[in-house]
Amino acid sequence: MHNIKTKQFTFAFPPNELILESGKKLGPITIAYETYGKLNKEKTNAILVTHALSGDAHASGSHEEDGIVGWWDKLIGPEKFIDTNKFFVICSNILGGCRGSTGPASINPNTKKEYATDFPIISIGDIVNVQKELVGHLNINKLLSVIGGSMGGMQVLQWMITYPEKIKSAIPIATTMKHTPQQIAFNEVGRQAIISDPNWKKGRYYGSKIPAKGLALARMIGHITYMSDDSMKIKFGRRFKLNKENYKFGAEFEVEEYLHYRGDSFVKRFDPNSYLYITKAMDYFNIVNGKRLGSIFKGLKAKVLVISFKSDWLYPSQQSQKIVKACKLAWVKTTYCNISSNYGHDAFLLEVKEEGQIIKHFLNSVLSKD
Amino acid sequence: MHNIKTKQFTFAFPPNELILESGKKLGPITIAYETYGKLNKEKTNAILVTHALSGDAHASGSHEEDGIVGWWDKLIGPEKFIDTNKFFVICSNILGGCRGSTGPASINPNTKKEYATDFPIISIGDIVNVQKELVGHLNINKLLSVIGGSMGGMQVLQWMITYPEKIKSAIPIATTMKHTPQQIAFNEVGRQAIISDPNWKKGRYYGSKIPAKGLALARMIGHITYMSDDSMKIKFGRRFKLNKENYKFGAEFEVEEYLHYRGDSFVKRFDPNSYLYITKAMDYFNIVNGKRLGSIFKGLKAKVLVISFKSDWLYPSQQSQKIVKACKLAWVKTTYCNISSNYGHDAFLLEVKEEGQIIKHFLNSVLSKD
Repeated sequence: MHNIKTKQFTFAFPPNELILESGKKLGPITIAYETYGKLNKEKTNAILVTHALSGDAHASGSHEEDGIVGWWDKLIGPEKFIDTNKFFVICSNILGGCRGSTGPASINPNTKKEYATDFPIISIGDIVNVQKELVGHLNINKLLSVIGGSMGGMQVLQWMITYPEKIKSAIPIATTMKHTPQQIAFNEVGRQAIISDPNWKKGRYYGSKIPAKGLALARMIGHITYMSDDSMKIKFGRRFKLNKENYKFGAEFEVEEYLHYRGDSFVKRFDPNSYLYITKAMDYFNIVNGKRLGSIFKGLKAKVLVISFKSDWLYPSQQSQKIVKACKLAWVKTTYCNISSNYGHDAFLLEVKEEGQIIKHFLNSVLSKD
Repeated sequence: MHNIKTKQFTFAFPPNELILESGKKLGPITIAYETYGKLNKEKTNAILVTHALSGDAHASGSHEEDGIVGWWDKLIGPEKFIDTNKFFVICSNILGGCRGSTGPASINPNTKKEYATDFPIISIGDIVNVQKELVGHLNINKLLSVIGGSMGGMQVLQWMITYPEKIKSAIPIATTMKHTPQQIAFNEVGRQAIISDPNWKKGRYYGSKIPAKGLALARMIGHITYMSDDSMKIKFGRRFKLNKENYKFGAEFEVEEYLHYRGDSFVKRFDPNSYLYITKAMDYFNIVNGKRLGSIFKGLKAKVLVISFKSDWLYPSQQSQKIVKACKLAWVKTTYCNISSNYGHDAFLLEVKEEGQIIKHFLNSVLSKD
């Protein structure tokens, strides 16, 4: 297998302003994105990959400058499961994010300062509307597929509803049509951790100390929900790091040290305000919203592959099965796979062998129907 | 049914100092306790009830002053499931606690100031050793039963191991022989929330502002783990409290408001340092510790009733089933009941009707074997 170096592009949203689902206007909007592979003449081989809460546009390959490898590099690349010798893959940082796209840390043209909490409420719908503009900008009329896990899966579901005629297939992975109170509760505790940090200062911390402890705490809570009890047992057991005698409420168990590490490293690359806005967009997301299950995806012609993981307790398989049911009731051609894995929710990033095989097979079947 | 007014007593631990499992000495020790019912002449009707992380000595009845009802009042009282017309019930606040017993907020006789983080590490073993002294002080040679859920259940298991000859029966509920990495991780995030609060000041906050936000966050995380996804759905659904337009990262969903409320109300009655010490004692607890399962309870003559709840994902039924297995392998007379409930871990406090019936029946069978 070859390795590919990647470059980020930016795309300025035209027209200058976007009308958000809330009715408010936002602009100008910049979206950072990467592409892998080549768009064919017929423009029929484009796949949009959508990222999860902490993801970014860098899905595959490694960056020229820092050598950082993309978050789904095991899946996407030349001769990989999503084969970039064959497909043209696009991944963009979401609206509201902090990795090149317009978000709360961007400069508000009206005040010449960072938006902070003046940034408007955004929804998964807004995020997808911007992606659709990017796809149009790349001269693609119809995507071969939209693929994403977790919050990326929510974006896939939104594409299926808002732009059914723009997609030939869709692969929502380890996701849900709406958050349960438990899922909202975990996000809310993370948000409260950030807001309770005195460095948060109602979001106006840019140029001074960021609410690093709050964000690290939010990430620690997140990580517990991303792993399964079993994967933690295998990874850490009850191993001690320090001697019990050194006990001063520091990390002693390896699991504690790991959570501290994940929390601290997240702080270096993520804006706490983005964490607030994005988790709120997830909590608001609700494509059921009182509708009959069979009416949600009515009229969708795209083929759908739904994937879930048995040990995922954050987005449990039943939520994916409900998506399958909604698709089937709407006569949508749907395949479902519940993959055995003990990685928990993280499985969509880690259990790539089986997941990749299934995606590869599905994409080929979509292609062959041309 | 009658209602009983209760009074707290204190008990000063003799001799003046206790040698802790860590080897350190602690003293003098005061233990707050309540009793319900009357000890019979033969002193054979005494039951020790052990409390969970946030519990205290006030298990039953209501206090003269404030009218606050005990945490297991539905279970314990005259003509109730644990009938105080028949049994003499004792409940004490644990060592390290903050509800009348010696803990980090108590005065260190050497410095005349609060112990804070100079308080020594305590273990479930230490907590139980002090309870055993209290039971001796009440002139009871053998308890009819020790009953407790969650961390209370850990104390029950410790009694079964350290003082097998002092108990006629034991009822560990919704508990475990050791914490998994996931259970440690949830506690650790709670501790980090407290420690990250600038008001914590390495534990020396007495007399000034307490780390209220940190403790509230810890409690919020705890509450998510105490409930089940289903019980949250029934209780809150996705109901909004405020209008979406008022959105300023405050509580909007009812589940958020509930968590805020539980967090804030906890702060009024609990010492953050106690939260640190007690959760550490839970994380250290490990009665397996490399032993063969069959050897853990070897020689125990007491009858054991193990109870778990099907929707409890914090202390899942499998952990209780492992206790049952360990008992059976050691030829201990053991009954097990896995109760259907959608309350999650909180079920041991809420699903009292079935739980109470089973406990009542078990206690009567222990009595009849006299």
